[in-house]
Amino acid sequence: MSAPVLQPDAVLAASARIAGLIQVTPVLRSRSTDALAGCSLHFKAEHLQRTGAFKFRGASNAVAALADAPRGVVTHSSGNHGAALALAAHLRRIPCHVVVPQGAVATKLAAIAAYGAVLHHCAATLAAREAMCEQVRAATGASVVHPYTHPDVIAGQGTAALELLQAAGPLDDLVVPVGGGGLAAGTALALQAHAPATRLVLAEPAGADDALRSLASGVRVEALTPDTVCDGLRGLLGAPNFDILSAYRSADGAAVEVVAVDDAATVAAQRLFAVRAKQFVEPSSAIALAAVLAEPARFAGRRVGIVLSGGNVDPDHLPWCA
Amino acid sequence: MSAPVLQPDAVLAASARIAGLIQVTPVLRSRSTDALAGCSLHFKAEHLQRTGAFKFRGASNAVAALADAPRGVVTHSSGNHGAALALAAHLRRIPCHVVVPQGAVATKLAAIAAYGAVLHHCAATLAAREAMCEQVRAATGASVVHPYTHPDVIAGQGTAALELLQAAGPLDDLVVPVGGGGLAAGTALALQAHAPATRLVLAEPAGADDALRSLASGVRVEALTPDTVCDGLRGLLGAPNFDILSAYRSADGAAVEVVAVDDAATVAAQRLFAVRAKQFVEPSSAIALAAVLAEPARFAGRRVGIVLSGGNVDPDHLPWCA
Repeated sequence: MSAPVLQPDAVLAASARIAGLIQVTPVLRSRSTDALAGCSLHFKAEHLQRTGAFKFRGASNAVAALADAPRGVVTHSSGNHGAALALAAHLRRIPCHVVVPQGAVATKLAAIAAYGAVLHHCAATLAAREAMCEQVRAATGASVVHPYTHPDVIAGQGTAALELLQAAGPLDDLVVPVGGGGLAAGTALALQAHAPATRLVLAEPAGADDALRSLASGVRVEALTPDTVCDGLRGLLGAPNFDILSAYRSADGAAVEVVAVDDAATVAAQRLFAVRAKQFVEPSSAIALAAVLAEPARFAGRRVGIVLSGGNVDPDHLPWCA
Repeated sequence: MSAPVLQPDAVLAASARIAGLIQVTPVLRSRSTDALAGCSLHFKAEHLQRTGAFKFRGASNAVAALADAPRGVVTHSSGNHGAALALAAHLRRIPCHVVVPQGAVATKLAAIAAYGAVLHHCAATLAAREAMCEQVRAATGASVVHPYTHPDVIAGQGTAALELLQAAGPLDDLVVPVGGGGLAAGTALALQAHAPATRLVLAEPAGADDALRSLASGVRVEALTPDTVCDGLRGLLGAPNFDILSAYRSADGAAVEVVAVDDAATVAAQRLFAVRAKQFVEPSSAIALAAVLAEPARFAGRRVGIVLSGGNVDPDHLPWCA
C-alpha cells in the first residue's frame, strides 16, 4: 500500500511556504452582479496574482519545496503555468526550461522568456512535448514540474481557497474552473481540511467535459478532442487529480458537482464581469461565474465563493468582439 | 467681500457625511506598471465606486447636505454624474430629474432611468440643457446639482484623495484628470488641508486643453470645441474650479501643473492597464496614467498617486479596437 500523495495539511504547509512570494489577492464584491445572480458572490481575484493567474501559487510551492534546486526545473506549457514557473525559478535564481509547442502564442512565449526561462520548441503533440521534456530533464538534471499533477503544485493551488475563506468567512459553495484539475484538486483538499461544510462545484467547458464524465462514471476519461474558447481548460483531468476529486465528500456527504458550461455563456459572463466589475478575466476564469448564472435556483440566496483564476486576455482579440 | 465658497475643512466634512453611502475603494498596485513608469504608482480605484465613477462621491455629498430635500434634485448630464445623482437621490428616497441631450448613449440613459430618475430630453446644446434644467427647477422646486461647480460636489470629489492618502501614505505627486474641474478642485482642497507637500498634477486631453491655457494665462478660457476620445473631459473648466486651482500652492510654493495628453497616448494607457492590471477604465481615467508615462523624467523614483476616475466603458467599442 503506497502512502497517500498528499496529506490533509499539505495546503496549509504550502501556504506557509509561499507566504512572501505570492500576492495575497483581494476578495472582490459586486452589488450588481450579486443582484443578477441572486446570491452573494465573493470573487478571489487571482487574475491579480503575480503573472496574472493562480498558477504562480503551485509553481512557487513546487520550486520552494525542491530538494535538488540548483539544477533547476523543466515543464511543458505555453500558457500560464510556463510563465508562473519561470518567475518562481527566477526568484529562487535557478534555471527554468519550458518546452513550448509550435503554434504557441508569441506574446505568451515572450512573457516566459522575459522571466529568464530557456524555451525549447517542439511539435504540437502531447507525445512530442513529453519527449522533449524528458530529453531536457535527462540532459540538465532539472526537476519536472508538471502543470497540474505534481503534488506540490496541487497543494499550492489550494492556498487560494484558504485565503478566500479567511477573508470572506464561511461559504456555502466554492466554484472553481476545472481543466487538468490542479486548482480543483487543491481546492478539494483545502475544503476537506478547513471548510468541510462548503460544497465544491467545478465549472467545465461543455466542449471539454471529461471531468464531468469521469467523475460521473468513476472511470477517468483518457482521450478528449477539446472544442472550447477556454484555452486554459483544454487538458484532460490528471490521474491524481481524478483520485482526489473522486474521494472528496463534503461534511453532509455530497460529492463534487460539475457544471458543464457552453462557450457562449462563458463569453457572456466574461463581458458582463468587465462591464459590472471592471475586471478583465480570461474565459477559463469567467466560466465559474457563468456556471453560477446558469443555475439560479441552485445558488439562490447562498454565500458563494468563486476563484477568478486568471486575467491573461489578449485585448486585441476579445471573444465577444469576434 | 464675499465669504469663500469652500472652507478648508469642507472635504473632511464631506468625508464624514458620505461615510456609509460610498464604497471605500481599494488602492491598487501593479509591479509591471511601476517598472514601466519608473516610479511607485498608487491607483485609487474609483472605477470600483458605486455607479462606476468618483462622481458618486460629490453627488452623495450634495444630496446628503440638501436643506430642502423632499423636492428632489435636478441636473443635466448624460454621463456619470447623471447616474451618480440618480442613485444618491434614490438612496435618500427623493425625486431626481436628469436633463439629457439628444444623441446621448442609450445604455447610459437606461442606467440613469434604472436608478429611478425622471429623464427630460432636450436639444444637444449647452443653452438648451441649461434652459430645460431651469424649467424643471421652476416647475418642481428641485435643487440644481451642477456636475462640477456645486460646492458640495467639489468637496465630495476631494474625499477620494483623502482616502488615497490614508491608505497609501505620503505621496510626492497626485495626478487626476481635469474636465470641468470638480475632481481637480476637490483634490486641490484636500491636498491644501491635509497633504501640503504633495504636488498636484492635472491630466487634460490635448484636444480640450482649456484648463492648461486658463491656468497658464490666469484668465479662464470660456469657449472650447473639444476634440477628444475622453468623453468625460469635454467640458470647460468651471469658474469656481478655476478660482480654487488658481489659488492652490503646494508647501514649497508650486502651482498646479497641467499635462496635455494626446488621445493616442491615452488609449495606449487604457489598453496597457487592461493588460497589466486587468482593470477596465475609461479613457477619461486612463489619461492620468498616460500623463505619467509621457514624462518619465518628471516622475522618476517618486511616490505617485493616481485617481482612476471611472470604468464605464462600452465593451463592444473599445477605442483600441476601432
